[in-house]
Amino acid sequence: MIEDYSLTVLGCSSATPNSVRFPSSQVLHFLGKYFLLDCGEGTQMQLRRAKVPFENINAIFISHLHGDHYFGLFGLLASLNLTGRKTPLVIYGPQGLEELIMFQFKQDSQQWKFPIFFKALPKEPFACIEEKKNYKIYSIALSHRIDCWGFYFVENERERNILKSAIQQYDIGVEEIKSIKQGADLQLDNGTIIPNGEITTDPLPSFSYAYIADTIAKPEIAQYIQGVRLMYHEATFLQNYEDLAKETFHSTARQAAECAQLAHAEKLIVGHYSARYKSTDGHKKEAEEVFENVELASDLYVYTLDKAPYCIWSPKIIDE
Amino acid sequence: MIEDYSLTVLGCSSATPNSVRFPSSQVLHFLGKYFLLDCGEGTQMQLRRAKVPFENINAIFISHLHGDHYFGLFGLLASLNLTGRKTPLVIYGPQGLEELIMFQFKQDSQQWKFPIFFKALPKEPFACIEEKKNYKIYSIALSHRIDCWGFYFVENERERNILKSAIQQYDIGVEEIKSIKQGADLQLDNGTIIPNGEITTDPLPSFSYAYIADTIAKPEIAQYIQGVRLMYHEATFLQNYEDLAKETFHSTARQAAECAQLAHAEKLIVGHYSARYKSTDGHKKEAEEVFENVELASDLYVYTLDKAPYCIWSPKIIDE
Repeated sequence: MIEDYSLTVLGCSSATPNSVRFPSSQVLHFLGKYFLLDCGEGTQMQLRRAKVPFENINAIFISHLHGDHYFGLFGLLASLNLTGRKTPLVIYGPQGLEELIMFQFKQDSQQWKFPIFFKALPKEPFACIEEKKNYKIYSIALSHRIDCWGFYFVENERERNILKSAIQQYDIGVEEIKSIKQGADLQLDNGTIIPNGEITTDPLPSFSYAYIADTIAKPEIAQYIQGVRLMYHEATFLQNYEDLAKETFHSTARQAAECAQLAHAEKLIVGHYSARYKSTDGHKKEAEEVFENVELASDLYVYTLDKAPYCIWSPKIIDE
Repeated sequence: MIEDYSLTVLGCSSATPNSVRFPSSQVLHFLGKYFLLDCGEGTQMQLRRAKVPFENINAIFISHLHGDHYFGLFGLLASLNLTGRKTPLVIYGPQGLEELIMFQFKQDSQQWKFPIFFKALPKEPFACIEEKKNYKIYSIALSHRIDCWGFYFVENERERNILKSAIQQYDIGVEEIKSIKQGADLQLDNGTIIPNGEITTDPLPSFSYAYIADTIAKPEIAQYIQGVRLMYHEATFLQNYEDLAKETFHSTARQAAECAQLAHAEKLIVGHYSARYKSTDGHKKEAEEVFENVELASDLYVYTLDKAPYCIWSPKIIDE
């Protein structure tokens, strides 16, 4: 199931894209589901180039209503409809997104062949917006020029691994196995207690991903994502433009790294680069002065868990 | 001035783009002006990749209100505004385009730093929509599922070239030169008439380009573009899908070629390929059965006049 954990960056530019950086968009492949995070112009073409089966996207998360984060929705929805999607699609986004999107399709009397459910994001600083058997998704209120949210995807703690030898030795039944996997000790018929730690091993660590979209430096969000495994944080500027970052409600690479450090993140990806930066080497250098495990977002790079060692993330460019 | 005549294809797909074909968009460089023909999603990124200085675009022409022909306008206009454009921009398009575009910017209270003039296309089959000293632009009503227009760019006939030797021999004055360039004979002081043909040479042929966007086969449009030098005609399908073409109000490669033949065009470019065609060789082959001078539209190809011989168009891929 390792291949289920990957993040594909489709666009990493800030508001003005160029020939190598498309506007914001990412795909998180998580527990068999495809979640699209923001949908800047050109997302559907980047999905094709990244060979992500976009017909299978389960839900879309729009951080805010600046065009570079949602102008790709028109084309993507139109193409999903043309290519015969039938399964429902949930779109989380700010209040007002539905009207903005659907206005474009009214004039063409578009007949939707699949249901679209727009769900408005809550105003709370931190809120669970989706809960399933094996994961939860939270929204995090950021601070930008307009309402803006980050998203936090958390896999539930995995069950402990019960030793096959113990099952045989103690002839453990199905119901008991379930409770032992949850952490219970084993009680034998003679009353003896076998501690859980003797008959199980620790599970692999569960996965979590925080997507921190456009925001002024906001260290307090770190409290919501303590111990996050992979974290993306916008880094529009470098520290010498700290004032401009503040004025435009964006962050610097250093501020992104400080947030990752406060959150005790395992790995940080920075992106949403201002068009002024032809090279992003400065972003890596600056962030690494604060936080050691930094990757640069690049269009059409996929960040996957390496199988061994399990916990290291490595980026790879997609072979078109 | 040869370099002033070029057509750059930014997108040649029909409604569903893929990894190598963006939705419809082209740039015509014509007499020092840049005209953008349709503006599908991703146009601003393709303009960057094609190294077209998009800040210099003089006017935009939108053929119809299907998304694959205008969804790129949102991002392009936003970027023009962010990058400091001040010169006015004219956008020709169907009635209703202004409302569709401006609706997206209302919620962000966008402050426009340059004036945008939307001009609704006339319902007439053929109408002059812009007339300048050295060219005219016409709209041509096509037949699609919704109102749709083609555009015809025509350079005025050029002045005749007066022989330097004649100017010296007859000591021709400035005013007389002007009238001779327009075709007048020279009258000497002694009353002798020197025929224009003896003291001038023919000018290079003037340039014209017809952009025939989405339409069912409509041979009658050929009457408006007789002798057109370069002509683009949509060819969504091949002839074996003639019925589907009719049903969806599109054309086949053969029908595009028939229209070029009727128009006595010099060169035909076909494009707007259905996603079902991985290779477009069939389009060239089918069109060439009817009309000999056919090129295939490809993303990021530029079609320029070769300097020698002057009248041959050759496509080149843009070196990114």
